[in-house]
Amino acid sequence: MKRINFDILAERVRNWGRWGDDDSRGTLNHINPEVLMRAVGSARQGKMFSLGMRFDRKGPQGVQSGRINPQLYMNVMDQAFSARYPSARHNDDVVHMSLQSATQWDALSHVHYDGTLYNGCKAQDALTSTGTKCLGVEHLASPGIMSRGILLDIARLHGVPMLPGDHAIGPDELDRAAQAAGVTIEPGDIVLVRTGHMRRFSILHDVEAFNTNFPGLSAQCAEWLYDHSLAAVCCDNAAVEHIGPDTLDDEMCLPLHMLCLRDMGMPLGELFDLEALADDCAADGQNSFLLCAPPLGFTGAVGSPVNPTVLK
Amino acid sequence: MKRINFDILAERVRNWGRWGDDDSRGTLNHINPEVLMRAVGSARQGKMFSLGMRFDRKGPQGVQSGRINPQLYMNVMDQAFSARYPSARHNDDVVHMSLQSATQWDALSHVHYDGTLYNGCKAQDALTSTGTKCLGVEHLASPGIMSRGILLDIARLHGVPMLPGDHAIGPDELDRAAQAAGVTIEPGDIVLVRTGHMRRFSILHDVEAFNTNFPGLSAQCAEWLYDHSLAAVCCDNAAVEHIGPDTLDDEMCLPLHMLCLRDMGMPLGELFDLEALADDCAADGQNSFLLCAPPLGFTGAVGSPVNPTVLK
Amino acid sequence: MKRINFDILAERVRNWGRWGDDDSRGTLNHINPEVLMRAVGSARQGKMFSLGMRFDRKGPQGVQSGRINPQLYMNVMDQAFSARYPSARHNDDVVHMSLQSATQWDALSHVHYDGTLYNGCKAQDALTSTGTKCLGVEHLASPGIMSRGILLDIARLHGVPMLPGDHAIGPDELDRAAQAAGVTIEPGDIVLVRTGHMRRFSILHDVEAFNTNFPGLSAQCAEWLYDHSLAAVCCDNAAVEHIGPDTLDDEMCLPLHMLCLRDMGMPLGELFDLEALADDCAADGQNSFLLCAPPLGFTGAVGSPVNPTVLK
Amino acid sequence: MKRINFDILAERVRNWGRWGDDDSRGTLNHINPEVLMRAVGSARQGKMFSLGMRFDRKGPQGVQSGRINPQLYMNVMDQAFSARYPSARHNDDVVHMSLQSATQWDALSHVHYDGTLYNGCKAQDALTSTGTKCLGVEHLASPGIMSRGILLDIARLHGVPMLPGDHAIGPDELDRAAQAAGVTIEPGDIVLVRTGHMRRFSILHDVEAFNTNFPGLSAQCAEWLYDHSLAAVCCDNAAVEHIGPDTLDDEMCLPLHMLCLRDMGMPLGELFDLEALADDCAADGQNSFLLCAPPLGFTGAVGSPVNPTVLK
Repeated sequence: MKRINFDILAERVRNWGRWGDDDSRGTLNHINPEVLMRAVGSARQGKMFSLGMRFDRKGPQGVQSGRINPQLYMNVMDQAFSARYPSARHNDDVVHMSLQSATQWDALSHVHYDGTLYNGCKAQDALTSTGTKCLGVEHLASPGIMSRGILLDIARLHGVPMLPGDHAIGPDELDRAAQAAGVTIEPGDIVLVRTGHMRRFSILHDVEAFNTNFPGLSAQCAEWLYDHSLAAVCCDNAAVEHIGPDTLDDEMCLPLHMLCLRDMGMPLGELFDLEALADDCAADGQNSFLLCAPPLGFTGAVGSPVNPTVLK
Repeated sequence: MKRINFDILAERVRNWGRWGDDDSRGTLNHINPEVLMRAVGSARQGKMFSLGMRFDRKGPQGVQSGRINPQLYMNVMDQAFSARYPSARHNDDVVHMSLQSATQWDALSHVHYDGTLYNGCKAQDALTSTGTKCLGVEHLASPGIMSRGILLDIARLHGVPMLPGDHAIGPDELDRAAQAAGVTIEPGDIVLVRTGHMRRFSILHDVEAFNTNFPGLSAQCAEWLYDHSLAAVCCDNAAVEHIGPDTLDDEMCLPLHMLCLRDMGMPLGELFDLEALADDCAADGQNSFLLCAPPLGFTGAVGSPVNPTVLK
Repeated sequence: MKRINFDILAERVRNWGRWGDDDSRGTLNHINPEVLMRAVGSARQGKMFSLGMRFDRKGPQGVQSGRINPQLYMNVMDQAFSARYPSARHNDDVVHMSLQSATQWDALSHVHYDGTLYNGCKAQDALTSTGTKCLGVEHLASPGIMSRGILLDIARLHGVPMLPGDHAIGPDELDRAAQAAGVTIEPGDIVLVRTGHMRRFSILHDVEAFNTNFPGLSAQCAEWLYDHSLAAVCCDNAAVEHIGPDTLDDEMCLPLHMLCLRDMGMPLGELFDLEALADDCAADGQNSFLLCAPPLGFTGAVGSPVNPTVLK
Repeated sequence: MKRINFDILAERVRNWGRWGDDDSRGTLNHINPEVLMRAVGSARQGKMFSLGMRFDRKGPQGVQSGRINPQLYMNVMDQAFSARYPSARHNDDVVHMSLQSATQWDALSHVHYDGTLYNGCKAQDALTSTGTKCLGVEHLASPGIMSRGILLDIARLHGVPMLPGDHAIGPDELDRAAQAAGVTIEPGDIVLVRTGHMRRFSILHDVEAFNTNFPGLSAQCAEWLYDHSLAAVCCDNAAVEHIGPDTLDDEMCLPLHMLCLRDMGMPLGELFDLEALADDCAADGQNSFLLCAPPLGFTGAVGSPVNPTVLK
């Protein structure tokens, strides 16, 4: 995306100051008691789904990704509590992992441009080698992320199991998917956009394809997200937005990241596994539900793993 | 606790085979669509709470605890995506931590005795230095943990901000707290037992006291938990159960751990921060609510950090 | 290698009890003051070489190797010591790594068979998830590893920059290389066997080839190492011994590992970068030298990184 | 130390440009073949010592130090190489640690002031969250650190097992210790200064005292180190220099660090365990020896663990 075009979009969707100069939760501020009660009302059958991937060494990070799949070690294994009564024993473990190695939230501090993060926070003042002083994921963790979730199944809209890697989803497709879902999107909702890309990892086991080209949202979708006053947007790829050879020459890299996280203050939910949920929604025609996806309160972190839970 | 007395209790509450020989979710099986819809019905005001502690170096693990507070490092800090357009930048982080360093679920594989874990799984076959082959926390993560939560505020029952370290809560106190809460406990519910102990960490900043003696449930409560067909029990200390000098000579160490995790198959939620929730419940008199506390799906882990979310 | 043939070799070279029932240093016991003074005497020119690889993310471990290249993080970066005088600043770092990710020593506890390690130590009693109770690398670290080193340049013997991946070096080749080196091997010496394999990593940058098939010693060399009463053997591949498709069906996997580490008690030095040293030795004809290669005293570790230093 | 006095000292000892504008090894440049042959000549008895501490969880880092003692985990434990022949098994481990948690070298990039490191390297250009681009410890690792070592036993000079925590060693004491040692210090030598402070950790087990006040060199010793053209200086405390309540108000914090690392380009060896060596030197009167203390080549690290080896 050309910088000149990007800047027009950015100005249009920027939320700085909208919820106060000290705000650290951005569009999550759209979630209020009324929105939450509407979310609760959308749970009608008592059917529960986890949208979280497994966290382990076989995760989606490749050797070149710069991120590490979770490495789990038993710190205590089959150890007696007491030498006198050795029958009773316990186990305990540690992990070394990239916080964004699998299903995860990007905190508002994950990206920035022109030296400034969301709401005017200066990168130079905020960023340290052990975390960010502003806009850390702990602000998204308290009081967590819960709202009505809406599935927009773009792959099904096109009648394919997964969109091709070069597919950049436009706002019109989001509209058509919402229409197909039979849902009116309302302020504070969280949309879950399904591209089917997760299947390249979970079914095709093609880690390289999974990490190279993503079907995903185009930058133009930023306005759509803004205009619908959404609380957050989640996707079954690693960036929400489309990434491919055609995006490498962008004057503004990862433009949707920049527009959402830095200008709008909208958290991005990535690597959400929507397969089982989407099958169920296609079967019963209910595409809205209660979504609870609380990040962990890592102080100063720029992201957090999450196990998103859906109740239909 | 004498082994002979323990064994009587254990036999009484054991759920092995109840949900099949391959079951890995234990008492979470009590949660069904009906229970979930009752949970949803208990959210009436749209008020949201996070019960999760912060995850950082100032966490509750002391130098002698054998566990490590989360150590966060920026793996990528203020780095340009592209040399050509250096304005756009990103940050990324990693963590090294004990999975049970702060607010967390014990998986059913966390403890065992007589060489056998829940449902007859053999310790020798299951445990490896990089995780357990059976009863890992991934089974609790899919499809997560959600139900109706009920606050049993034992500290408030006694009119104190926090119970003393030597207080072992009995079943009768749980009954009285339920009565005071005005709630009828039903199968599949999750009880949150408040001792006020969290204040020793969060307000008094006394890490040593926080880790030494805990007010908490007595082993006798196992029957109460079993008889009410609860899905899980959570507490604001590090072990749910009472630990103190009087428990060191137990012939069965951590008896409630053993009865819940190993015999009953009931997950334990530890280090839940109940302070703000309890104040609110005392103020509005609503002590039941929707609780969503999804563990992360770490394959083979014996525990998981969690950010429990309450909606009243 | 057939187990029956292996067992004959193993019995022939076994050193159990030779240096006492509590011995933890194995063939390093061959190093005595006389050997050390001979080592010192072999340093004649004041020329110094490091045989250590770099320790970083671009190290030789591939994504499938199960080992992690060193991940370095700044724990403190450009931080003032004192707010009053912010000019003075410091930096500090941490690492997460496999101890055997690059140039390293195998401790005697690295491998075992039939449930027993070197000198009769029982695997079941020794091994824990946080280290071994016997034969840890700390025993090799105190007082370190120093002796006369001798370069046996097998690649140069054959007139090639690197031996092919399927080349299993026999004892006769070691003899011929020693003869070509003009050195009489003596008890307590450490031999450095060059295959040229390091060039597949350092020059050809072919991590896959580097990790798949190794030229290296055949199992028959164990007798040769034993008969010469060597203190240790080092090589420029990841296993000292030859590994390839032909070794996969071995009834005794990694037979030279087993014979050296478990039966003989001889430490293996792996991934030693011999390229610059070998060029120099070829040029000046001096193939013996002082070698100092002290492992770090990680308590209970089964290996240690090392930066071997040569003085000619 | 007042900044005005510090600056005079700094100008006096600064070595910038002395070994070229690209130099990354500082005073190690004093080590040449002649120095190395003198070092070799000082090994006369074949007696070997390790000066390295153990690397484990019981290391000297306290909970407030900001550094982590090595955490070792078995990544592979008692695992068969092949299902067909399960008798042959192996073990493998990983570590998470601060590089400066125990016996270690400070790289020249460990500290800086006025925004500039040794030889004019700009902090802003060099420092990243995953390492330094200039003056990383890899430059000290290739070709390692070896020279003649000289023990200056200041504790013994004063007839005490350990100097008190408030003892700042002056240049005159170094002179007297050298005289008592019967050694003429020569260019390229490495001095090992013994304060006895290590005993507070290794014998008294007083981690707090060990980390609070150190006997050690005064800043004035910088001139002495410079005038003797030493290659490096090592000590049995955590900072080489004296640290105590009297140093907290320094206008230039850790002045000897700054003078050595940043101005002179002299590596500091810290937490060297000199106890056994010092006893031996007192007994046989030989206070000079061959010292080999190679750091590991961690790319971009500001320090490295080391197991220093002495041969007398």
